[in-house]
Amino acid sequence: MANGELKLLGTWCSQYVIRIRMMFELKGLSYDYIEENFANKSELLLKHNPVHKKVPVLIHRDRAICESLVILQYIDENWSGTGPPVLPANPYDRAMARFWAVYIDDKLPRQLIDTLKAATEEAKAEKIADIHAVLELLEGAFNKCSAGKVFFGGESVGYLDVTLGSYLAWIKAEERIVGAKLLDETKVPLLAEWEKSFLAADCAKKFLPSVERVEEYVRELLVTKWKVTSA
Amino acid sequence: MANGELKLLGTWCSQYVIRIRMMFELKGLSYDYIEENFANKSELLLKHNPVHKKVPVLIHRDRAICESLVILQYIDENWSGTGPPVLPANPYDRAMARFWAVYIDDKLPRQLIDTLKAATEEAKAEKIADIHAVLELLEGAFNKCSAGKVFFGGESVGYLDVTLGSYLAWIKAEERIVGAKLLDETKVPLLAEWEKSFLAADCAKKFLPSVERVEEYVRELLVTKWKVTSA
Repeated sequence: MANGELKLLGTWCSQYVIRIRMMFELKGLSYDYIEENFANKSELLLKHNPVHKKVPVLIHRDRAICESLVILQYIDENWSGTGPPVLPANPYDRAMARFWAVYIDDKLPRQLIDTLKAATEEAKAEKIADIHAVLELLEGAFNKCSAGKVFFGGESVGYLDVTLGSYLAWIKAEERIVGAKLLDETKVPLLAEWEKSFLAADCAKKFLPSVERVEEYVRELLVTKWKVTSA
Repeated sequence: MANGELKLLGTWCSQYVIRIRMMFELKGLSYDYIEENFANKSELLLKHNPVHKKVPVLIHRDRAICESLVILQYIDENWSGTGPPVLPANPYDRAMARFWAVYIDDKLPRQLIDTLKAATEEAKAEKIADIHAVLELLEGAFNKCSAGKVFFGGESVGYLDVTLGSYLAWIKAEERIVGAKLLDETKVPLLAEWEKSFLAADCAKKFLPSVERVEEYVRELLVTKWKVTSA
């Protein structure tokens, strides 16, 4: 990769960015990483993602690709000969991976934030139950996709692993803040095992931020952005 | 295709179903179509889409694939040797097609319904302006994706064509109901030309319902579901 021809605009705390960095690690590709500032978005970001004005933005030879799940598939397809394939090879397995990736991003971010913002203990318990229900569905998906192996992707980390795995630091930080298990091994034993395997993978060790750092960041958001005083 | 090995569960009015039928037409694949009833979902639907309980559901050799954009990609990949490819070949063009398809489904359905439900003329004008803004972005996307050709997919109907084209009957019906142009050739001349080409394609002629039928259906929804009395 020639210097400067592949750039990723991101922020350290975004699961959508973290999964792209993990993907590059799996593929063994090098790139320039540029940390963006939410409060003061760069000209480069606004130029290359005028539709959503959000990270991640991948800039490859001055052409931008936006939306993390689209970027993951772009990397897998454009560098199909570099590193392992990250999406499954079989069309049905690819469809399952795409379905569950959309499901994860459709449900988890909103549910994680709703839980943090819950005004009463009762409301919080309800929101936590919603997260448990989603993770229980994902437990079933893991059972099917992994076919008895360690990862959603089988023997090695794949598309769904980085998609769900990119949330782990936030999930662990939120468990501390709300004082309850979200990814609970008594409810989702397979996912709990998967979590251990995933956290031991190089891509997770390199790119998941520490739980402490995320906890501090989320506690700040609670006060400054969501005006929640009880946490 | 052996009889019964490929089934599509759908409803006549759903853009998400219509695009799958268009895709099968493009690929020249035969399948069994089963019309579902919203008010009384079949056992087959509930069994095969327990997560969302929605159409479309594609059942291929007793395995289900759900979510229309996932299904479109599955059909293109699983029958890659049958009929023309529907997604672009180039990874960057595929990424653009995926980005804009998600954008369309993220924006249009909500905006079309919000416009119908607008309580005042002022609110309606605002909602229509939102739709125009989305279509103007899609005009720019068309300009890039089509590269001067007739369709988003170039010389022939492709992934983005069926994704956006599946909304056309609803858009035309809604124009009659709200009394305003939504896909307005003075604002989006390229899309207006595209619309003519798309409506002349076999897949549109066969599977887009008539504007009259959709208009009647939407007027019924306005009264029975959305309790809007002014339309």
